[in-house]
Amino acid sequence: MTATYGEIDPPQRLLMGPGPVNAHPRVLRAMSADLLGQFDPEMTAYMNEVMALYRPVFGTQNRWTFLVDGTARAGIEAALVSMVAPGDTVLVANFGRFGLLLTEILGRIGARIETVDAPWGEVVPLGAIADAIARTGPKLVATVHGDTSTTMAQPLDGLGRLCADAGALSYVDATATIGGMEIAADRWGVDIVTGGLQKCLGGPSGSAPITISDRAAAHIQRRKHVEQGIRRDDIDDGEGVRIGSNYFDLAMIMDYWSEKRLNHHTEATTMLYGARECARLMLEEGLEARYLRHRRAGAAMTAGLRALGLPVFGDDRYRMPNVTAASIPDGIDGETVRRRMREDFEIEIGTAFGRLAGKMWRFGAMGYNARKHKVLLTLGALEAVLRAEGYSCLVGEAVPAALAAWEAAP
Amino acid sequence: MTATYGEIDPPQRLLMGPGPVNAHPRVLRAMSADLLGQFDPEMTAYMNEVMALYRPVFGTQNRWTFLVDGTARAGIEAALVSMVAPGDTVLVANFGRFGLLLTEILGRIGARIETVDAPWGEVVPLGAIADAIARTGPKLVATVHGDTSTTMAQPLDGLGRLCADAGALSYVDATATIGGMEIAADRWGVDIVTGGLQKCLGGPSGSAPITISDRAAAHIQRRKHVEQGIRRDDIDDGEGVRIGSNYFDLAMIMDYWSEKRLNHHTEATTMLYGARECARLMLEEGLEARYLRHRRAGAAMTAGLRALGLPVFGDDRYRMPNVTAASIPDGIDGETVRRRMREDFEIEIGTAFGRLAGKMWRFGAMGYNARKHKVLLTLGALEAVLRAEGYSCLVGEAVPAALAAWEAAP
Repeated sequence: MTATYGEIDPPQRLLMGPGPVNAHPRVLRAMSADLLGQFDPEMTAYMNEVMALYRPVFGTQNRWTFLVDGTARAGIEAALVSMVAPGDTVLVANFGRFGLLLTEILGRIGARIETVDAPWGEVVPLGAIADAIARTGPKLVATVHGDTSTTMAQPLDGLGRLCADAGALSYVDATATIGGMEIAADRWGVDIVTGGLQKCLGGPSGSAPITISDRAAAHIQRRKHVEQGIRRDDIDDGEGVRIGSNYFDLAMIMDYWSEKRLNHHTEATTMLYGARECARLMLEEGLEARYLRHRRAGAAMTAGLRALGLPVFGDDRYRMPNVTAASIPDGIDGETVRRRMREDFEIEIGTAFGRLAGKMWRFGAMGYNARKHKVLLTLGALEAVLRAEGYSCLVGEAVPAALAAWEAAP
Repeated sequence: MTATYGEIDPPQRLLMGPGPVNAHPRVLRAMSADLLGQFDPEMTAYMNEVMALYRPVFGTQNRWTFLVDGTARAGIEAALVSMVAPGDTVLVANFGRFGLLLTEILGRIGARIETVDAPWGEVVPLGAIADAIARTGPKLVATVHGDTSTTMAQPLDGLGRLCADAGALSYVDATATIGGMEIAADRWGVDIVTGGLQKCLGGPSGSAPITISDRAAAHIQRRKHVEQGIRRDDIDDGEGVRIGSNYFDLAMIMDYWSEKRLNHHTEATTMLYGARECARLMLEEGLEARYLRHRRAGAAMTAGLRALGLPVFGDDRYRMPNVTAASIPDGIDGETVRRRMREDFEIEIGTAFGRLAGKMWRFGAMGYNARKHKVLLTLGALEAVLRAEGYSCLVGEAVPAALAAWEAAP
């Protein structure tokens, strides 16, 4: 009956896939701090600090900037279920697997879904989004910033204005880019942006930062329905359609993070400590320096893969710096290479989804792992494994090419 | 723009409220281990170990025993939204705030809700549940094991048989009892039980252990609808009504935890490490020894509070060992006492909800804090604060009474 297993002792592996990646050691150390009571003044002070720390991370002045307790996917569902009522029309600008995920979640909410699609490896032109808005009259326009399935990053400047002019709210899933590419919620004019810790923020999965414009917050508050067990005289229900989830009810969660401190879930304190340290590290490094580091890592990885003779997937103008997909050469078994990378070098590289499955590997350089030596070590190991598998390439070119690209990256 | 705050440094506080409580230091240390790739063999091995470790914790042989990534409330919603379709009749056996929470979540799912209620401080007799089942013909019977709002623990032996005989599924929220009172999912015959780490399991909030009977799993699998981005030939959709949430779709989450390893969310690895260590600690201590320790702590707390002249709330036959509510004496300000306990002694005690708000304090002795010295220190501090606030009681009686009760507890 009593299965017993030893102390946790994972291998010291370098995670160079599309995420999760290795957490920054400071984040893990911060998470070992002891717990606090849910409404103790030190705990609520830390909650307020998290709100302040994530505003610059999101490029926003939004008051409502906080954490959803769950993985990045929880943040997406919280945003969508709180904004969208059954029957609402939602336009999804879709260019990969995570755009499909938005339609999937919206379908369960009961939304009327319209899409404007780009082929894998491209992005959706702003003009096409504008046309689709005019055609479909959506209440919400939803898209993804960086879709790791295709390695594309959708340009978002101008999206918010387009939506606001049409009376639509806007939502962006920035899970794969937050911490590695600029998030400019205010300049984009986007109403809600969500993220996760486990990619470019250099933390573990399990907490989803979110920012909400005042306009979207007012929309959501009109749907508020405080649960019976904790009704209070100072908090009224709204007139709108009740939000379809209790756990993801952002109206109640906002009251929990406000000075009202309405009891909702029990905040995941250890994850909050981790999220706080992720943002602290980012602001210490400086946003511009951090984005440059990710651009350098992406440029180096791309140059190294090309020097190995591996074509890189997707439109160069829109490729994310932090994840790069490259073709598996003819005659090489992709999974054997992944296994040898893992077993001989303790380096993880990624597979691919959907129509790229079996044809591409994906190489990440995110957060704590977007560093020169980690990119160089990965490319050196990959060259050795490919040659051992019988692949012929120019020998010893990948690492110098990557190093040169690192230095040259703008 | 760049708010900066110092390194995380919470006070070393003793959390003797109704939870969260201090995590066991071994749990926090386990959580500082580095991350693994989502499908790396060592990660999936840890997932399988978690499944094995939680079976004895839940008192079950259920294959489907794993974690939902979110707080305890996430586990509740995942269970209910996966079992219940809009229009289904659900009977809630309700005896406190967390019974009301079940009705709240069910309302958003669109269930037809029936309740059988006990007054606060009592439990629902099994016969009353049987009558209500006969009257309402529910598809699901849902209740709470221990409701911290009233400190009552609902007896559950026989519940599963009652439900199965009526063709109903059954669900129990064991958030407040798991790790501190026996959970006997198989003997109870209950289909789904969920918990949380932050009370008697001695971990942080943010991961919800769940166990699912084969019968309930089959019911849920019939509602499976794999998202478009990750469809596979080896996984078919079911014929049932699609589950109303993607994040909480237990059909997909079971495929993620099975050898199919269907991609769903990115597992919250650090929380999984913590959940694993919570269960390891529990099995090392031994289930019976652990439950005895909680009974001793509860008996000691109760005896001490009564020796201070504070009436203890609720029917003694059904009181939970791990949380005890006692009346705030006339003329004493409950919040002032809580503040002095916190500021002078670094001890947190709890407030109360609903009709007990302002009338009761709640004292927890859970998980790592269900220890003799912590109960004695809390009572000694409380006596000092109460006397400083002008309350007159027998001096120096509480601690010896508690010590005697600790030793005598069965």
